[in-house]
Amino acid sequence: MPRRQITGFSNPTVKLLRSLRDKKHRKREGKFLAEGLRLLTDARECGRIPETLVMAEGRDAHPLLGALERAVEAAGGDIIETSADILTKITGKSNPQAVAGVFAEWDTSLDQIDRDSAPIWLVAQALRDPGNLGTMLRTADAVGAGGLILIDDCADPFSVESVRASMGAVFTQHVVQATWDDFIAWHRAGNGQLVAASLRDAVPYRGAPYQAPCFVLVGNESQGLPEDYEMACDLRVTMPMKGRADSLNAAVAAAVLAYEVLAALD
Amino acid sequence: MPRRQITGFSNPTVKLLRSLRDKKHRKREGKFLAEGLRLLTDARECGRIPETLVMAEGRDAHPLLGALERAVEAAGGDIIETSADILTKITGKSNPQAVAGVFAEWDTSLDQIDRDSAPIWLVAQALRDPGNLGTMLRTADAVGAGGLILIDDCADPFSVESVRASMGAVFTQHVVQATWDDFIAWHRAGNGQLVAASLRDAVPYRGAPYQAPCFVLVGNESQGLPEDYEMACDLRVTMPMKGRADSLNAAVAAAVLAYEVLAALD
Repeated sequence: MPRRQITGFSNPTVKLLRSLRDKKHRKREGKFLAEGLRLLTDARECGRIPETLVMAEGRDAHPLLGALERAVEAAGGDIIETSADILTKITGKSNPQAVAGVFAEWDTSLDQIDRDSAPIWLVAQALRDPGNLGTMLRTADAVGAGGLILIDDCADPFSVESVRASMGAVFTQHVVQATWDDFIAWHRAGNGQLVAASLRDAVPYRGAPYQAPCFVLVGNESQGLPEDYEMACDLRVTMPMKGRADSLNAAVAAAVLAYEVLAALD
Repeated sequence: MPRRQITGFSNPTVKLLRSLRDKKHRKREGKFLAEGLRLLTDARECGRIPETLVMAEGRDAHPLLGALERAVEAAGGDIIETSADILTKITGKSNPQAVAGVFAEWDTSLDQIDRDSAPIWLVAQALRDPGNLGTMLRTADAVGAGGLILIDDCADPFSVESVRASMGAVFTQHVVQATWDDFIAWHRAGNGQLVAASLRDAVPYRGAPYQAPCFVLVGNESQGLPEDYEMACDLRVTMPMKGRADSLNAAVAAAVLAYEVLAALD
């Protein structure tokens, strides 16, 4: 398959790829951008092959890069070589890694997941920080969760910041987007325990009666969970707060709780 | 005390305050910026009074703002009223809260802290992300730690991002900056157990023999801890990694470990 060389900043493909840093354009195109050989190799090993691979001229040869090129070619994808300057323009990073890929977004509906396929699932409501979102995906991978379920208006899991903070877990973990009403109806129609970190009618998080599949729910960074969401949970647990503050960072709270659930279920 | 009104963008005070968003200027001036009534109230209640208080004209009256103004006046500080536009320019946020304060940085040397004053201390090596740094301070507050000790070349704890992510804990927690050599000499000259999350010669983090004062050490976001730093620890513990990745976000790892230490020591 011939490779395309792109040498001009005003090339339409450069403009398109660059536009994927904006949510509006990602949603219109149904595509997103991921950068770096490690991330793209994680993707490949999980069966996610970029539609377009963009490589900097003068990059170092690497066996993993060769494997990536062959996978993109085999899948009928597009391989583009361009200058480091143009790659910088595409990724928006002043020091881009030598390779970036464009992926088609995938289906993130609830019916894509089998709740019994994993003992733990993370659930976030109105999580606004893409770094927190990516960090939760990374934690989900670490605790052997099935995925991250995003409730209401969350940050975009396919944003550059989220993909980067996930350290590849966006490719290994299921990502679901749902309204609260749809999620709670789905939850009640099947197996599973919904657990929230809460101060209301809560038991200590250590030694609480966790059950698989356990859905660990955290709320918005500044507002926390709405009270009716908390009260709809099967279990409310409280973590020690020894200082002046009454809450943890959302991704931290999810991780402390998820590791406790993991220890209880193991 | 008379209040100053500032109406011009080119006012030298506006330029000075605005410059505090840059580390170079913070270090030269020995001052930093914190924003929002809640953060400034946390500071006041911990005995940290801003040298300069900047308030937006047309702000809503609030008893906590009144208390803040009185505290600044009593301490001989400067109170400035300005437009919302100028406050935006100072803070760099498009939607600033109605009040910001300038604080003198304080001494962050090791000899400022009493290691036996708290059962847990967090220690970070070459932590580069100011959001992670602030999140660690917030976690330190939550677990009743004494503070956060920053080893080698870390992000600036007095950056706007770090102060914001700390949710006020920068005012409640001790912050120390030290080289590894100075830290390890100080550590060995007294009481205390240095614990690292590690894959080398490590025991499971649950049920490990933690002892107070326990110093929980995490490394740089991309490199982790240098091997000789790990080997200098009194205890190395490992956390389950069930997925593809072999590490957690640094602030997440510190929190999961710190909550385990808290449960063990309680």
